[in-house]
Amino acid sequence: MTRTLAIECNKKIGKKVSLSGWVHTKRDHGKITFIDLYDRSGTIQTVGSGELISKLRPQDVIEIEGTVQKRPPSMINEKLETGKIEIKCEKIQLISKAEELPFDITKESLDLELPTLLDYRALTLRHPKIKAIFKVQEVIIDAFRESLKTRGFTEFQSPVIIPQGAEGGAEVFEVKYFEHKAYLAQSPQFYKQILVGVFERVFTVNKTLRAEPSVTTRHLTEVTTLDAEFGFIESWEDIMDLAEYVTKFMFSRVNDECRPELELHNATIPQVRGKIPRVKLREVQEIIFKRTGRDVRKEPDLSPEDEREICKWAKEEKNSELVFVTHYPTKKRPFYTYPDPDDPDYTLSFDLLGRRTEWLTGGRRINDPSELIKNAKVRGIDLEKSALYLQAFKYGMPPEGGFSFGSERITMDVLGLENVREASLFPRDMERVDVRLSTPKS
Amino acid sequence: MTRTLAIECNKKIGKKVSLSGWVHTKRDHGKITFIDLYDRSGTIQTVGSGELISKLRPQDVIEIEGTVQKRPPSMINEKLETGKIEIKCEKIQLISKAEELPFDITKESLDLELPTLLDYRALTLRHPKIKAIFKVQEVIIDAFRESLKTRGFTEFQSPVIIPQGAEGGAEVFEVKYFEHKAYLAQSPQFYKQILVGVFERVFTVNKTLRAEPSVTTRHLTEVTTLDAEFGFIESWEDIMDLAEYVTKFMFSRVNDECRPELELHNATIPQVRGKIPRVKLREVQEIIFKRTGRDVRKEPDLSPEDEREICKWAKEEKNSELVFVTHYPTKKRPFYTYPDPDDPDYTLSFDLLGRRTEWLTGGRRINDPSELIKNAKVRGIDLEKSALYLQAFKYGMPPEGGFSFGSERITMDVLGLENVREASLFPRDMERVDVRLSTPKS
Repeated sequence: MTRTLAIECNKKIGKKVSLSGWVHTKRDHGKITFIDLYDRSGTIQTVGSGELISKLRPQDVIEIEGTVQKRPPSMINEKLETGKIEIKCEKIQLISKAEELPFDITKESLDLELPTLLDYRALTLRHPKIKAIFKVQEVIIDAFRESLKTRGFTEFQSPVIIPQGAEGGAEVFEVKYFEHKAYLAQSPQFYKQILVGVFERVFTVNKTLRAEPSVTTRHLTEVTTLDAEFGFIESWEDIMDLAEYVTKFMFSRVNDECRPELELHNATIPQVRGKIPRVKLREVQEIIFKRTGRDVRKEPDLSPEDEREICKWAKEEKNSELVFVTHYPTKKRPFYTYPDPDDPDYTLSFDLLGRRTEWLTGGRRINDPSELIKNAKVRGIDLEKSALYLQAFKYGMPPEGGFSFGSERITMDVLGLENVREASLFPRDMERVDVRLSTPKS
Repeated sequence: MTRTLAIECNKKIGKKVSLSGWVHTKRDHGKITFIDLYDRSGTIQTVGSGELISKLRPQDVIEIEGTVQKRPPSMINEKLETGKIEIKCEKIQLISKAEELPFDITKESLDLELPTLLDYRALTLRHPKIKAIFKVQEVIIDAFRESLKTRGFTEFQSPVIIPQGAEGGAEVFEVKYFEHKAYLAQSPQFYKQILVGVFERVFTVNKTLRAEPSVTTRHLTEVTTLDAEFGFIESWEDIMDLAEYVTKFMFSRVNDECRPELELHNATIPQVRGKIPRVKLREVQEIIFKRTGRDVRKEPDLSPEDEREICKWAKEEKNSELVFVTHYPTKKRPFYTYPDPDDPDYTLSFDLLGRRTEWLTGGRRINDPSELIKNAKVRGIDLEKSALYLQAFKYGMPPEGGFSFGSERITMDVLGLENVREASLFPRDMERVDVRLSTPKS
């Protein structure tokens, strides 16, 4: 008998069907047993009797043959898409028996400590609320691609293995590459710039790897970044305009396609009244000083506390849960960042903060190869080793810029998660690569 | 003045426009100079006079203001999308000057040796015929995603850094991971199987890294693989059916969307009359013996020569440029491959060969954790270290299987390229990571 999905049963009242899926919950009522069965389409209530059904456990995989019937009016469950029907089981077959679970995953929220949540990742990912995180992330990533395709961008695949740590800094993983040393890409920066010379407008969804030695709630060693870069900008503000368009496009699709997932997390997409505010770093620091008395006006960057405060300000004063912070100091930005011609100690660069965290960083780039070589040298980077990168600028390059999103951070903040690890299917950090690498500190 | 794209000029005859792009070619006719200018939309002829235009070189980036006019009938170029018009230049501005090029990139085909092609990758990628390769690859990858989304598959992001070489074998890169050793994923195999337990049907477009010590025309150390995996299969042939559907979907989109790119390569998409033939390995070897006299009937696998021969057979005898080879020996397949219950020395696995090369490998998987542990042990793999993978099977897993495409190989064979390196934007092998790692053998 051909398989019917749970959701399809709504249209098969009175018909015989065969369903396959996992046991979510079981409730015994004397001789009768209720099983909530789920498959990729949703959950459906089934009711039957007998020894087999009474012994089923959560996560058992079963096949059920039965008849779709209307529930009595008093039994209708409005919360469930199949809440007006149920399956009267006629035949049950056990396909795969689950071991007894280490904890109850039928509860509305899994009250587990993060290490346990991750030690049992193959199981905890099955929890509806956790699974929902990755449906939202899927839509965010897909919306990123779609938004840029409609603007004439070409998608490309950026390398993971690179010949040298591209942007300087020690936070790069080393790979034993046959008889040589190679490194893992911290970003697709060089490659996306090279490809502006080829396709003019490009984007990539790509793994980036950073040997972050810090264990915080916001850092992972492996991140899925969403990168875009484009040429023939008329102003560096074009780059922010594009980032704003992409972000709003993402929210709109999440809002349209992820209603149940947002509800499970009691979340709403970030609100922006009109345009996202754009504030210079030094102005941001003045605002923080005025609001809190904390004087960070000479700091070269924002602390996490500063980021939360300026997000609070944007929400209260500008009706926006997002805010662009612009003009970071030249010395704090990568060597290829374009200095502001009017004030070369600051750059034509920006971060996008969402709700409380930095989501995105971007800016205009320097395209003059000799200036790039000179700037890189100051940071201890020998750009002559990056032959392909330099080529791109030697052979004709329009004014250009771009940005990079961290998909996990957006997912985290849209859903209001506590820790970025919750927004990564298989999070990697100093202490864990699937399994714990060392005894965690107690 | 707002920028107009080359292609948009077709609708602006008689109008003033501003264009920005790269100089493709320059032809001097006495006082008049013709420049073919290209941007992301295409190429357009411009005509002007004066010192600046006469000194332009290929790859210079310029901005042109001028009037769109019809070409005289004798000058119409039917091959060009803008072949009926040209721009009469009124003002030219040089935006970025290109150095003198190391070779002529305006020729229809770049007659460069592969090492030179790759040494100047940032430049050679700009050649229309080379650029076309990656437009085709973009569509192949996008079609892979689209085909599976319409079948209820969930996209996920698979890790690059893994705790141990998943499938055994020495061909795995080692990473210095803080105080530990980690490895680079050779495939998303374990993760996609884990996620069948979560989403039932999943796919991922992912970088896979293999320390291939061989320098052949078909191997790269970094590959973009297209992986799918799904549960509740009724027969292992469901997996081939899905692979066939996805492949045909890809071809159909390439055919619809990549006409100019196919023409540049004088290529047509592979033809399949009806269903792709499915032939057991042992039968394939009989066919080869009968056709060529070469006796490979006891070999555990096909050689490249065998693959070419069976592709020839499929085309000649079955009117198909694709062929599934099935039932590889159990000992030659990964430990998780499902043995044929009727003949356990062979597996319910398959390769898809296209034109001349293996494009895809797939099959049904073993889902019994104790059998997996036992099989892995024989191959020297301690599966107890892969805690999450085992969890997936302990807690209820439906019968499942999947497959993995190499996107570079499909691109190579669809376009008839000689070497898989040509189908990778920035190919990595034993001897090269952007730059040459060691003096090539002479």
